[in-house]
Amino acid sequence: MRVLLVFAHPEPQSLSASLRDVAVQELEAAGHEVRVSDLYAMRWKSQVDRADFPALAPNERLQPVAASKAAFATHTLTDDVRAEIEKLLWADALILQFPLWWFAMPAILKGWVDRVFAFGFAYGVGEHSDKRWGDRYGEGTLAGKRAMLIVTAGGWEEHYGARGVNGPIDDLLFPINHGILYYPGYDVLPPFVIYSTDRFDEARFEAAGQQLRVRMRTFETAALIPYRRQNGGDYHIPSMELRADLGATDLSGFALHLRRAAD
Amino acid sequence: MRVLLVFAHPEPQSLSASLRDVAVQELEAAGHEVRVSDLYAMRWKSQVDRADFPALAPNERLQPVAASKAAFATHTLTDDVRAEIEKLLWADALILQFPLWWFAMPAILKGWVDRVFAFGFAYGVGEHSDKRWGDRYGEGTLAGKRAMLIVTAGGWEEHYGARGVNGPIDDLLFPINHGILYYPGYDVLPPFVIYSTDRFDEARFEAAGQQLRVRMRTFETAALIPYRRQNGGDYHIPSMELRADLGATDLSGFALHLRRAAD
Repeated sequence: MRVLLVFAHPEPQSLSASLRDVAVQELEAAGHEVRVSDLYAMRWKSQVDRADFPALAPNERLQPVAASKAAFATHTLTDDVRAEIEKLLWADALILQFPLWWFAMPAILKGWVDRVFAFGFAYGVGEHSDKRWGDRYGEGTLAGKRAMLIVTAGGWEEHYGARGVNGPIDDLLFPINHGILYYPGYDVLPPFVIYSTDRFDEARFEAAGQQLRVRMRTFETAALIPYRRQNGGDYHIPSMELRADLGATDLSGFALHLRRAAD
Repeated sequence: MRVLLVFAHPEPQSLSASLRDVAVQELEAAGHEVRVSDLYAMRWKSQVDRADFPALAPNERLQPVAASKAAFATHTLTDDVRAEIEKLLWADALILQFPLWWFAMPAILKGWVDRVFAFGFAYGVGEHSDKRWGDRYGEGTLAGKRAMLIVTAGGWEEHYGARGVNGPIDDLLFPINHGILYYPGYDVLPPFVIYSTDRFDEARFEAAGQQLRVRMRTFETAALIPYRRQNGGDYHIPSMELRADLGATDLSGFALHLRRAAD
């Protein structure tokens, strides 16, 4: 398997970097080929702006969606973005690894998504009609590939629990797992999350490393998050609302979009 | 009232910029004083890195939380960050305005949060003990001030509905409204969201502008999102889990953290 790991921590000597090395070693030991996009080391440009669209005339209004569509179609995306797209097409699997800052990914990684996930590549793909609303949420350019998150959080695990004050970690990560990874087609694995990272001694690192090694060894076979396919019949088209007879009546929020045995 | 509006769209001629101007005009017409941080115009630096902590020795390991704490305490944050902190302290109200990109804020705005919301200012504030877990979620440096989001989304409103495939907009914005605004103390107003922005004609702009003007006129008086206060008795401390007798039994996910009349 070919794996791309996109890494977004500024410090080479961080806990995050040590965990990244554990993941890479374990994948390579199992015979997988791994490439790493270390965004800070690459001095990745975070913000979408005019410089991303060299074909845009100087006095032309920048409409990000239209500009992305035109640049992808005419092969005029910038070299750094094209290189990342090549890596995503090369890889059978994607890992995004980042510290959870303000309950989301760091800006530099968000900027990798904003810039690399071009129209025609990661969105705006496929037929839009009364029968299907594009190739997305389980279909799309990256369908058939696997993806997962490796996340380090400073807060306590209980604070991210089902009734914890921060909100459940699976809900906090839904916009990424469902909205960024599943959207362009990835099969998404449950995330690997470690907590209380400010108090990490050697014993905890050893334990976390062992758990991470297991996750890397089972990357190809582990059960996926059972998100519903958009065009599989569960949603009305084009309103894309879940059919009234699906999802338990006591469910609300993001959990509705998980397939259940009863459906 | 003094209002800071933080704006994150790269195009001065965009729909977003036109809506920003409507909001500013309406606020000023009502006698409020408004300042705008136009992040693209300011060439805001998005990513947290070593350059944010000039006091850090060249060979010292960068630990973002510890570095933020030290820089805030010793007044060695960079000038751009200090200027934003001054604006936040000056303002009675904060508006974050942005296009929804990949179900979250653009990288440049996430970078404003990551860099400006320093330890000792927006987090790491107050006593941490068996009785209270810091001044956060309804308490903190920015308590008593109001905040709201102005969001433009390309997708259809139905796709962001209670059963829409993207997930409910209020849940998608929870990590921002609750995790970024309520956390350091803001009273948070329901967001102003417009959809299907790629097909915006003059009639729709006129209607959206009118709705936005109403929201600006009612900024000081509108009802807040009724998030629970962390230290108000609803949560066990220090696990910060919601008491078992609170929240309807049919609730899960983020909705548990809204106060209900029955509680």
